[in-house]
Amino acid sequence: MIRHPFFSVEPWSLRETGLDLDTLAHTESLFALSNGHIGWRANLDEGEPYGLPGSYLNGVYELRPLPYAEAGYGNPESGETVINVTNGKIVRLLVDDEPFDVRYGTLHAHERVLDFRSGTLSRGAEWSSPARRRVRVSSTRLVSLTQRAIAAIRYEVTPVDEPVRIVIQSELVANETLPPSDGDPRAAAVLESPLVSEQFASSNTAAVLVHRTGLSRIRVGAAMDHVIEAGNVSLASESFTDAARVIMTTSLEPGERLCVTKLVAYGWSAVRSLPAVRDQVAAALEAARQTGWEGLLAEQRGYLDEFWDHADVEVDGDPDIQQASRFALFHVLQAGARAEARAIPAKGLTGSGYDGHAFWDTETFVLPLLTYTAPDTAADALRWRHSTLPLALDRASQLGLRGAAFPWRTIAGAECSGYWPAGTAAFHVGADIADAVLRYLAATEDESFANSVGVELLVQTARLWRSLGHHDAAGAFRIDGVTGPDEYSAIADNNVYTNLMAQRNLRAAAEAASRFPDRARELAVGPEETAQWRDAADAMFIPYDAALGVHQQAEGFTNHQMWDFESTRPDQYPLLLHFPYFDLYRKQVVKQADLVLAMQLRGDAFTDDEKIRNFAYYERITVRDSSLSASTQAVIAAETGHVELAYDYLAETALVDLDDVNHNTSEGVHLAALAGIWIALVNGFGGMRNHDHALSFAPRLPSRIGRLAFTICCRRRQLRVEATHTTATYSLVTGDPIEIAHYGEPFTLARDAPVVRPVPKRRARREPTQPPGRAPARRSMTPRSGRG
Amino acid sequence: MIRHPFFSVEPWSLRETGLDLDTLAHTESLFALSNGHIGWRANLDEGEPYGLPGSYLNGVYELRPLPYAEAGYGNPESGETVINVTNGKIVRLLVDDEPFDVRYGTLHAHERVLDFRSGTLSRGAEWSSPARRRVRVSSTRLVSLTQRAIAAIRYEVTPVDEPVRIVIQSELVANETLPPSDGDPRAAAVLESPLVSEQFASSNTAAVLVHRTGLSRIRVGAAMDHVIEAGNVSLASESFTDAARVIMTTSLEPGERLCVTKLVAYGWSAVRSLPAVRDQVAAALEAARQTGWEGLLAEQRGYLDEFWDHADVEVDGDPDIQQASRFALFHVLQAGARAEARAIPAKGLTGSGYDGHAFWDTETFVLPLLTYTAPDTAADALRWRHSTLPLALDRASQLGLRGAAFPWRTIAGAECSGYWPAGTAAFHVGADIADAVLRYLAATEDESFANSVGVELLVQTARLWRSLGHHDAAGAFRIDGVTGPDEYSAIADNNVYTNLMAQRNLRAAAEAASRFPDRARELAVGPEETAQWRDAADAMFIPYDAALGVHQQAEGFTNHQMWDFESTRPDQYPLLLHFPYFDLYRKQVVKQADLVLAMQLRGDAFTDDEKIRNFAYYERITVRDSSLSASTQAVIAAETGHVELAYDYLAETALVDLDDVNHNTSEGVHLAALAGIWIALVNGFGGMRNHDHALSFAPRLPSRIGRLAFTICCRRRQLRVEATHTTATYSLVTGDPIEIAHYGEPFTLARDAPVVRPVPKRRARREPTQPPGRAPARRSMTPRSGRG
Repeated sequence: MIRHPFFSVEPWSLRETGLDLDTLAHTESLFALSNGHIGWRANLDEGEPYGLPGSYLNGVYELRPLPYAEAGYGNPESGETVINVTNGKIVRLLVDDEPFDVRYGTLHAHERVLDFRSGTLSRGAEWSSPARRRVRVSSTRLVSLTQRAIAAIRYEVTPVDEPVRIVIQSELVANETLPPSDGDPRAAAVLESPLVSEQFASSNTAAVLVHRTGLSRIRVGAAMDHVIEAGNVSLASESFTDAARVIMTTSLEPGERLCVTKLVAYGWSAVRSLPAVRDQVAAALEAARQTGWEGLLAEQRGYLDEFWDHADVEVDGDPDIQQASRFALFHVLQAGARAEARAIPAKGLTGSGYDGHAFWDTETFVLPLLTYTAPDTAADALRWRHSTLPLALDRASQLGLRGAAFPWRTIAGAECSGYWPAGTAAFHVGADIADAVLRYLAATEDESFANSVGVELLVQTARLWRSLGHHDAAGAFRIDGVTGPDEYSAIADNNVYTNLMAQRNLRAAAEAASRFPDRARELAVGPEETAQWRDAADAMFIPYDAALGVHQQAEGFTNHQMWDFESTRPDQYPLLLHFPYFDLYRKQVVKQADLVLAMQLRGDAFTDDEKIRNFAYYERITVRDSSLSASTQAVIAAETGHVELAYDYLAETALVDLDDVNHNTSEGVHLAALAGIWIALVNGFGGMRNHDHALSFAPRLPSRIGRLAFTICCRRRQLRVEATHTTATYSLVTGDPIEIAHYGEPFTLARDAPVVRPVPKRRARREPTQPPGRAPARRSMTPRSGRG
Repeated sequence: MIRHPFFSVEPWSLRETGLDLDTLAHTESLFALSNGHIGWRANLDEGEPYGLPGSYLNGVYELRPLPYAEAGYGNPESGETVINVTNGKIVRLLVDDEPFDVRYGTLHAHERVLDFRSGTLSRGAEWSSPARRRVRVSSTRLVSLTQRAIAAIRYEVTPVDEPVRIVIQSELVANETLPPSDGDPRAAAVLESPLVSEQFASSNTAAVLVHRTGLSRIRVGAAMDHVIEAGNVSLASESFTDAARVIMTTSLEPGERLCVTKLVAYGWSAVRSLPAVRDQVAAALEAARQTGWEGLLAEQRGYLDEFWDHADVEVDGDPDIQQASRFALFHVLQAGARAEARAIPAKGLTGSGYDGHAFWDTETFVLPLLTYTAPDTAADALRWRHSTLPLALDRASQLGLRGAAFPWRTIAGAECSGYWPAGTAAFHVGADIADAVLRYLAATEDESFANSVGVELLVQTARLWRSLGHHDAAGAFRIDGVTGPDEYSAIADNNVYTNLMAQRNLRAAAEAASRFPDRARELAVGPEETAQWRDAADAMFIPYDAALGVHQQAEGFTNHQMWDFESTRPDQYPLLLHFPYFDLYRKQVVKQADLVLAMQLRGDAFTDDEKIRNFAYYERITVRDSSLSASTQAVIAAETGHVELAYDYLAETALVDLDDVNHNTSEGVHLAALAGIWIALVNGFGGMRNHDHALSFAPRLPSRIGRLAFTICCRRRQLRVEATHTTATYSLVTGDPIEIAHYGEPFTLARDAPVVRPVPKRRARREPTQPPGRAPARRSMTPRSGRG
């Protein structure tokens, strides 16, 4: 965990007022900029020192071999891995021939600000060179949300007390040296220098580099141009296979300013020719030049104003959470805004963690937020999934199944998981995609999306379930030998989460086929097939332990030995680094919400009493060794009446990246955990549910939060919910009247007629306990009961 | 499958009357010689052509990296892999300057004979060089069963019709070039040239090479000397880092003979110094020289006469089976005879298959044969296991368990399995070792072995079971999440085989602790611990499907989907090469006897009716993609009254290597399947069981076998059983009177008083069916019922 003494708590920005070189990799992730198409880590302008240099382009990857000690049919032989592309961020500064490097000379002041409303990263530094020449340096970066191929930097330098000679080298650098990795040496070899030069050129203020990846054959073009605001600057430029440079030299008097705007354009393609890619980046650059720096800034703010208008969540009483929640929304938006036909990876484009792969987290954690705040980006993410359907159909066929088997982890759609019990066997990803489709359709009623994308995704995932499961002798439909969300179990029979999600998937596919008969015909769905889907759904086997009165995470789970929590030392967490999978899989210990997530996403399948008993049971054995758990626990804690516990879980997910709780934010932010803040606030404290097209709320706030207000887009309307400890106020901001429910009571909401409802009193209930040492940190003011 | 047209059926030898260069690798395995300490594949004397060159020393291995696409706690990082050591077999011949090479010139005749009584491989060839010089070449090889460090070759050459000049180069060659492998390139690199030269020397008729392996640091010495029987031979010798040569040159008249005896000695050690190893091989060589060729031959025959006297099985009516059974006994003896404190690998020392690893097959298939025919070798094999106990205790501790976790596959005792669901999770290996201890003790009553080895193995394996399992809320003792013998299931709860074998293990450990109280005290076994063992054993959970009236291979197994056998094409077997493990694991399909093996080894735990029903049920879903199945199915088929089916299974196991049924005998013979012939004959048709010290028989022969006779060593006695279709005759060859049973009726057998008992009539019973296309080939004369 990292507590940054230099961070200040502000509602609309993340500000760092000093520079800690030991945690550079962490802050590079936090302050990273992205538009979902291009990602720039917050590496210092001058290139070093760095924690992890990183410039990423969504969908630019290299293939690396996936080795196995023992071969197995169906194991993927290579994996897609994100690569660090041409770095366009570098602006080196020489002050009277001494390089500006914070490790030398004297750094009098250093500040970085990530502004959630302007969408910029600003930096200010005041530095004296070893020869005591003092300068003020300021830079502002953006990765444009409106011009997706463009990133830009405004760089300024001003001598403080005497004249200095200034040289600025603005660069493009390919195949940067990365910190050594401890992985497979063959993989490291592939990734060490992934770009092969195809063309380089420079002239006057501009330069371009075109490369191609060795195995995946993706062509990458990067170009830069500069606008210089100062008289008497002499210019030079040069280019090589892996670097290009524009060099600006001048002399400045104290107080005189050299101001350079660097425009960087990226373009890439696996099919387009070298001239096409080169000209594409030149065109993007020219468009940005026409827009100009102030124009780019204005567009950026306009885009974000619109977003915040639809998405902001106001939290009174806890400024940390307020800041964290906007930080989270900002990063999730950055990851999804212009991802368009490409994946939203688990780390967005903020780091190379998880090899840049996208997982089920996108559909289950990230898309709920985007669906209700920026629905077009959610549709794009699902269009990306849809674009990978041919690979998923092939994979299913390779596995002996019908329909689509979506990959556990991927960049371009191929299965990249090299450990199948925790990868390919986690077939629930298909139902998670179907669920995201249903959520999007419920929220938008977007018929065109349904026709082009949605129905086919529902049908092909339903086909997978039908072929994966079978009816047993008693008629029950069983899905055996699969892995649910909890990564401390694997290859189990009838995982409740999987079975319930598959049940909804099957029913929805049958329904979609009847609502879209033409599309169904094109997909060769007939009445026999839909009848089979409905039969399977109706007969779905949901294991329940009658003696304990709780559902079994999977069949037989509650018969397994309890993990010996008492003997597990604090330094043995996360357990997977200290115990073998075989031991984790066979005992009652849960890494992350699984049955509890089923109760969130399929809340309609459980009674209130079941939820209460299940939550208490699984809370006792859930160790939260995953960042994909706290938000779910927050939602169900809130629903089952443990609102202060929910608040503690909210705080945990809220601080995952800011405090580096899992010690790996250095490799990129945890998008799903960030989205989890919104989930905890809106689904948890707002009590929002959208089962079967019925939009409902049940707000209840923890004691420290005096007011919670949020806005959601639903069915072409904008709704605003404002809750206090005693009342909930519902307003329709735009759109036609809509029926919603407050604590189960439906009412119609119309524009200019806010509805105020009282929040019912809650019953006191004994607080559940967690495994020793695994309770969330206490943030609420009430003392915790139990031993946690 | 390979049907050798050149093989002839003889009772006491394997004879090949022509040379098929396409199947060289196969015949190199079949004709391989070994004494368990040294193994020489039957590579041609002149070194090439070859299928797979192979000289192996038991326990000489190199470490190779075990790679993983995704890391996991407890995964072994390197694996022990057998290496091809210095080749001492090579005797090159030049005939008037043309090398004797069967690929050139004319091969008029070629014959190889593996003689099971003399323990030699003889070869005769008549060949004309491309220049039409005709010679007769004959060689006889042995790997001495009496002098374990020694192998020898008698090599003779005779011109046929005109004088020729002869040069013989007798060689030692290290780091031979091997055929390319398709495995991990890093592993291939390690194994390509595994020996690093430490010393080489030659003088007169002798030479020595000493090497050391790179990572495992095992020093290997190989030396040779020659006895030349001919006048006027000029001699030269030379040596280099990786080769040494003694060159004999002479001219021979037609009919005149050059006869050379080559003696080769090997020595190796991970601790002894270079001079020690070098002198050790020199000493062995000198001893062999003193014995002389004729002496070595005589010792070899004496050793084998003694073995056959105790071990031979006579089968009247099927000469193929008679030959196969002696071939099998010979290979199993070769593998175990002088293995002493080292492993008996799955392929013996006949090839590099399975990396030269030993598995549970040794204890479960090979040791039953050795226990009752050559009990000292069985004791040695268990002493080897015992010698690896420190590693097994460490491994258990690494896995969070008590007691000993023996490796799934190993050479020197370290776990070398790189896929834990089918490796480490197959904990039954511990119970299999315990079972082999119990079998050995029941057969020998060897108290000294019990004290030094047996009790500790029983105790440490019992400790593993106690810590691996747990009592559930109802008190039942469960062993969850482990893998049984069937490799088409994994990580299942309460595998019946595992649980029943663990039950016996726990009970036997408790009993041993009370019979050997001093030893128990040394091992810190107290009454609390033995009480826990007995409790666990008594409460052992054995899943049973009451609706079907059969045991479940593991809990829930019979609820799983049936494999779609009808749609599985013949070319899709073995299934593991065409379907992913996830699919195999979750369906009802069995690779190899699992529950059926439990019924053999724990026959006392099943009623006759259960055996009949279980066998019929599992027979329908067992595909026998493993060579470790047919013998078990033979035994239970015989016991449940399907004696013709048992005969078919016997034939299948009998021909696994001779006909290369699994297409991989080229990498070494399948020792367990070979031992399975004895198991099928003795346990199957002889009906021999030895549960709880009660030795019983229930002979019943298939129609084609008119008489079956076998001898076993049991409790310091030698018993002979001779069965026909109508009677069984029991004789005590040596030892005090003993109580045995015939079809459940006990009687006392004394010397010189054979007991004759009638074989009861059997009831006709409907023959079980196998999956389509997976019935064993019909060998019995009665037509098969059912669809098989």
